[in-house]
Amino acid sequence: MRVDGAWRRAIELGADGRSVVVLDQTRLPYEAAWLALADHGAVVRAIRDMQVRGAPLIGAAAACGVALAVAADPGDAALARACGELVAARPTAVNLAWAVAAVRAAVASLPPDERAARAWAAARAICDDDVERNRALGGHGLAILRALAARLGAGGAGRPLRVLTHCNAGWLATVDWGTALAPIYLAHEAGLAVHVWVDETRPRNQGLLTAWELAQHGVPHAVIADNAGGHLLQAGQVDVCLVGTDRTTRGGDVANKIGTYLKALAARDAGVPFYVAAPSPSIDWAAAGPADIPIEERDGDEVRWVRGRDEGGRPARVEVVAATSAVANPAFDVTPRRLVTGLVTERGVAAASPEGLAAIFPEHARPAP
Amino acid sequence: MRVDGAWRRAIELGADGRSVVVLDQTRLPYEAAWLALADHGAVVRAIRDMQVRGAPLIGAAAACGVALAVAADPGDAALARACGELVAARPTAVNLAWAVAAVRAAVASLPPDERAARAWAAARAICDDDVERNRALGGHGLAILRALAARLGAGGAGRPLRVLTHCNAGWLATVDWGTALAPIYLAHEAGLAVHVWVDETRPRNQGLLTAWELAQHGVPHAVIADNAGGHLLQAGQVDVCLVGTDRTTRGGDVANKIGTYLKALAARDAGVPFYVAAPSPSIDWAAAGPADIPIEERDGDEVRWVRGRDEGGRPARVEVVAATSAVANPAFDVTPRRLVTGLVTERGVAAASPEGLAAIFPEHARPAP
Repeated sequence: MRVDGAWRRAIELGADGRSVVVLDQTRLPYEAAWLALADHGAVVRAIRDMQVRGAPLIGAAAACGVALAVAADPGDAALARACGELVAARPTAVNLAWAVAAVRAAVASLPPDERAARAWAAARAICDDDVERNRALGGHGLAILRALAARLGAGGAGRPLRVLTHCNAGWLATVDWGTALAPIYLAHEAGLAVHVWVDETRPRNQGLLTAWELAQHGVPHAVIADNAGGHLLQAGQVDVCLVGTDRTTRGGDVANKIGTYLKALAARDAGVPFYVAAPSPSIDWAAAGPADIPIEERDGDEVRWVRGRDEGGRPARVEVVAATSAVANPAFDVTPRRLVTGLVTERGVAAASPEGLAAIFPEHARPAP
Repeated sequence: MRVDGAWRRAIELGADGRSVVVLDQTRLPYEAAWLALADHGAVVRAIRDMQVRGAPLIGAAAACGVALAVAADPGDAALARACGELVAARPTAVNLAWAVAAVRAAVASLPPDERAARAWAAARAICDDDVERNRALGGHGLAILRALAARLGAGGAGRPLRVLTHCNAGWLATVDWGTALAPIYLAHEAGLAVHVWVDETRPRNQGLLTAWELAQHGVPHAVIADNAGGHLLQAGQVDVCLVGTDRTTRGGDVANKIGTYLKALAARDAGVPFYVAAPSPSIDWAAAGPADIPIEERDGDEVRWVRGRDEGGRPARVEVVAATSAVANPAFDVTPRRLVTGLVTERGVAAASPEGLAAIFPEHARPAP
C-alpha cells in the first residue's frame, strides 16, 4: 500500500540477505520512521516493544529474525537459541511460533554453509505468501460486504455500508493489504461506498494506526472511543463488524485485542453480523477452546501513559493514571465461537465451529473423539 | 468526604447567599482547584464544560444557579430566562431540569423581594437532601455487597469483594458520598474488604476521578482500559458491577456514561450481577423507555485530545487523533432494563421494571393502560 505516495510493504527484505526494514509502529501515526533490524535480537526487541505488531507481520518479522540469526551463526545451538528467544517475544500470536518453526524446518537438515541462503528465501516466501493470502482473504470478505450492501440498499454515496473495526488488522499488521481491512480496501477500490467506525483501542490506541491507513487511502472513517460502539450498534449505525485475530482455536474461538469480545456481545444483541478475518496461519489447530489461549498481561505503563502530539505538534506523551492508583493491563480477550458469524479465510468463509473450519481446511481436520 | 485531609463537599454555598464554590473537575485529578461561581452564567458554563459533572451534582449546581439568578434579578422574566439557560446546559441529566424546576417553584408565588432568600434556602435544601439520600442509598447497596460477600466467601483480606465500576458516580458526582461509590465507602469503613476495578471511561476519563477519590480514602483499586472489563468478567475476576445513572426511565432502563451498556452485556454473559445506583431524582417518570432518552453528541475534541501530566509532572494534553480523521462522540448509552439486576435507591433496591419502581415509589405509579 502507499506511504507518502510510494508503494511499500510494512516489512522489506534487503537484496543483500542481511538487512530488514520495518515501519516503526510505536512512532506512528505521529511519525513515519523506517527502522533497520540488523540482527535477531533487534527483531526480538521490535516484536516485544511492538515496533512491529499485528499477528501476520509479527510472523513475517520473526521469520526474518531466524534468517538473520542463521546469517550470523548457522550452527544448531545458535539457531535453537534464536528461535527460542523469538518465540518468547510475544506469547499470544500463534503466527510467531508458526513462522519461526517454518524457517527452522527449512534449514534444519542442511549443512551449516547452505543455511543462510535457504533461510532468507524461506523468510521471503513467508512474506510473499502473506501478501497473496491477504489478497485472497480480502476477495472473500468483499463478497460479504457486497451481499450486505445489496440486502441493505447500502454502498452508495448517500448510504455507505458502515463497518465497525477494532484495533489494527490493516496493512500495518501484515506485509501488505491487511486482514480485516483488506475487504474494505477492495470495496473502496471497487466503488462500493464504505464508512468505517474505528475503535480507538486503548490502551495502545492501535485504532489510530487504522485511521492513519484509511486516511492515506481516502477511505471515509471516524474514530470513536472504545465505549461508543455498543451505542452505535444499538442505534442501527453499524451494518457489520469486521475484526482481525491474533489466534483462533480450531473450534472457532477468537483471541484478539482486548475489547473485541465486548463488541461481539453488542453485535449479537443488535442482530448485526460479526466477522473475523482469520488467515490460516492465525488458526491454532492445537487449541481446542478458549482455555487453551494464554492471555498476555502487559506493562501497566501502557495504561498510565498516552502518546500523541503536544500543543506544538511534537510527539509527546502524558501520564493519565497517577502513581497512587494500581493498573491492570490484559492485552487480549477471547470471543467465544457462538458470537462469531463467520471466519473469513484465504480459502473462503468458514462457520466458527470445528466442523466449519475442518470443512475448509480438511488437512487439519481431526477425527471425532 | 476528605480532600487533602479536610472534610469538604463537592459544592459549597456561602453564608452570604451569593457565592458558590465547586471543585473544578476538568483540572482533577491533576490539580485540586476550587472554582467560585459568581452568577448563573458561570453555573451554565461550569455545567456545559463539565467543570461540574455527575447527575446529582449537576442538579445541586443548577439549583444554586437559579438562586444566583434570583439574587441578581428576582423578576419573572429574568427567572424564566435563567432557568431556560440552565436546563439547556446538558440535555441528558434529568436532575438538572428537576432541580431547576424545584427552586423555581419554591419562589414563583412569592413577591420578588422575598425570592432571593427563599431560593437560596431551596438550593441549600437540595444539597442537604442529596447528602442524606446518598447515605441512605449507600446503606442499601452495602447490604447487597454484604450478602454477595457472604455467598462468595469474599470480603476478607485474602479475597476482597471485587467490584467493577464505570465513569465517576462518586463523591465528586454528588454533593457528598456518591451514588455507586457510597456502598463501597461504607463497606470499606465497615471492614468489608473490597477491590474496585475502575474503567478509565474514555473519552473524558472520569474513571481517573474515581481512582483519585478511592486513593484519597485508601480503598484498594486498579484502573483498567474500558476494553478490559469484558475479559475480567469472563475470567471470574469481577463479583459485581455497580454503576451510576444520568437518567433512568420509569421502566428501569438506564442512561449512563457511554460504555455502560457494554459492561452490562458482559456481566449478563458471565452471570455477574449488574446493579445501578439510582437515587430518585435521576428517575425520569415521564420517560417510558430508551426511545424517550436523547443521547448527547459532544464535541469531538474530547476524543481527539487526552489530558494528563507531561514528563515534568505539569498538567498537559496531547492530540491523539489527527485532523485527517473524523471523530464521533456520543456521550451516553442506554442499558435496557433486561440487563439490570436491580436499581439501588434511597428507599431500597427496586427491580428494573415499571412494577419494581412503582412498588418502591408508589406516589409515581401510573395505572396500567
